Amino acid sequence: MGKNFVEKKISSETIYKGKILDLEVDKVKCPNDNVTTREVIRHCKAVCVLAEYENEFILERQYRYPYNEVLWELPAGKVDPGEDLVHAALRELEEETGFHANSITYLGKMYPSCAYTDEEIYLYYASDLVKTHTNLDPNEIIDVYFKPLDEINEMVINNVIVDAKSICALHLYMLNIKK
Amino acid sequence: MGKNFVEKKISSETIYKGKILDLEVDKVKCPNDNVTTREVIRHCKAVCVLAEYENEFILERQYRYPYNEVLWELPAGKVDPGEDLVHAALRELEEETGFHANSITYLGKMYPSCAYTDEEIYLYYASDLVKTHTNLDPNEIIDVYFKPLDEINEMVINNVIVDAKSICALHLYMLNIKK
Repeated sequence: MGKNFVEKKISSETIYKGKILDLEVDKVKCPNDNVTTREVIRHCKAVCVLAEYENEFILERQYRYPYNEVLWELPAGKVDPGEDLVHAALRELEEETGFHANSITYLGKMYPSCAYTDEEIYLYYASDLVKTHTNLDPNEIIDVYFKPLDEINEMVINNVIVDAKSICALHLYMLNIKK
Repeated sequence: MGKNFVEKKISSETIYKGKILDLEVDKVKCPNDNVTTREVIRHCKAVCVLAEYENEFILERQYRYPYNEVLWELPAGKVDPGEDLVHAALRELEEETGFHANSITYLGKMYPSCAYTDEEIYLYYASDLVKTHTNLDPNEIIDVYFKPLDEINEMVINNVIVDAKSICALHLYMLNIKK
């Protein structure tokens, strides 16, 4: 990694093992030999899909408890243990929106908040959609919308869309696919 | 919030109160009357700054313990209790890079991972920079680089930059300022 940036783990304590995350508090030795504490959320990988259908893109509205707000987001979800990333992306898209994608392109990955979580979100562009049916978890309430890219960009500019994975997927789509 | 999406808190347990985050596990009642658990990281607000200097932009390389990787990022940091957001953005930029910005523009906020953290990251564009000096925490090692936008876009396309706040700031800059 070039010059010595690395922090060496001295000890690790698992504070909490949960449903969607674990919390680990580690003692680490910094490159300057100071000892400090690192609080780390361990989280599974996730996927997020920008899906195009008849020149529009699928958006969702979903209540998010940490913010007590209903957010605009792209379809997304957790990767199951051992599951292939593309499979997870296609599965989450279909479960949440009721569309199967016959074409899917990897856009890139992103790290949501690198100081304290190890989550990696893999971003995809999906097209050639075919209507099937949704399959939501019993406690999942998701409203599905279709919007043209211009309107979505306005929503980002006006901070109506604030969800990081959605903004990152849009950015990579505009750099990679649309140009 | 339109139709009833809201989950009502029944009880809340603080599992951990830490240096940079707290972990809270809440019992909540879903709109369908099911009772479920929400694991929530409580985190202070943060700021991230895209800073332009002589037609280039400031990037940093910093080791991130959760990933055991050195990441490319824009200057960023936590907002102190009671601190004004613009003050935090100017302070973090100067502490980490040694540049004071005479001009700063709000780009928007983003939510890094809305299912389990309440962190909000406020994104800024800074310009009219004047060299002062850095003021790093003793355990903070940050290398500072200057790169043109084309090269930064290539780094995003090639997934060399994967940090969400940095990608979101670049996206909002390209939609709002550069056009």
